[in-house]
Amino acid sequence: MAKYMENSVLKSKDFNWGNVPLLKYKEEDGTFRSIHRQVLSCGAPDLPCEMRYFEIAPNGHSTLESHEHTHLVMIIRGRGNVLIGKKIHEVKAFDVLSITSHEWHQFQTSGDEPFGFICIVNNERDRPHRPTPEELEELRKDPVISSFIRC
Amino acid sequence: MAKYMENSVLKSKDFNWGNVPLLKYKEEDGTFRSIHRQVLSCGAPDLPCEMRYFEIAPNGHSTLESHEHTHLVMIIRGRGNVLIGKKIHEVKAFDVLSITSHEWHQFQTSGDEPFGFICIVNNERDRPHRPTPEELEELRKDPVISSFIRC
Repeated sequence: MAKYMENSVLKSKDFNWGNVPLLKYKEEDGTFRSIHRQVLSCGAPDLPCEMRYFEIAPNGHSTLESHEHTHLVMIIRGRGNVLIGKKIHEVKAFDVLSITSHEWHQFQTSGDEPFGFICIVNNERDRPHRPTPEELEELRKDPVISSFIRC
Repeated sequence: MAKYMENSVLKSKDFNWGNVPLLKYKEEDGTFRSIHRQVLSCGAPDLPCEMRYFEIAPNGHSTLESHEHTHLVMIIRGRGNVLIGKKIHEVKAFDVLSITSHEWHQFQTSGDEPFGFICIVNNERDRPHRPTPEELEELRKDPVISSFIRC
């Protein structure tokens, strides 16, 4: 993909976009399940952001993590539950989620349909942080969160 | 709306989002038809962009214009035709459009359903430029574009 976007129209079909490759969610494994990633835009000099599409199969989930960079998310397919900070939200297509710096978050599919969302982030961003045993213990003090998180 | 986003989940219902106000597309009139705008996110320090939702009713269209700032667009409702530069594209839900600097563009609904899309732009951007009579004459040299544009 070019460093920055060119004039283009990426046609979608069944939540795939032309020749956009289906990528692994992450290189390392074990903290997530049944999720893939497609990079739909690499931004522009005045729009230093990537638009990625993530899709999580039924029973799948993203990694429980936090980081300094912010996420701007729009669900476009199916339903899911999302932990942001200390709250769990039921979300569905076209809901918009803002996740600010250093908030714990995890996306989980609910129901039988794949759960898909676009996520906009800065091109340059820090690497995610996974909870330490101490942070996990702190998170697990809330029984609702404790029964929700998968890691 | 806050200068920057806070942790939030904006619930959607029929392509409206909670208390997000329905805004006029533009203050001045005459160059567009049957279109409204909602601002879904004002970005963050590391994500200096707005996410807006535009919806154009059947037979409606946006202003034919160009500007320096770039657009990153995802269609999320219905169908339309979009002029970008010198090409007209038929688009539908989940197609992704990148519109680079100084390209003429115009969005028009096709079919009986409203045509809705999110559009991501930098928070700080130049004002749109409408074609001068000379630029319009140049555009109209192409008979396909000439019969497409509305202004």
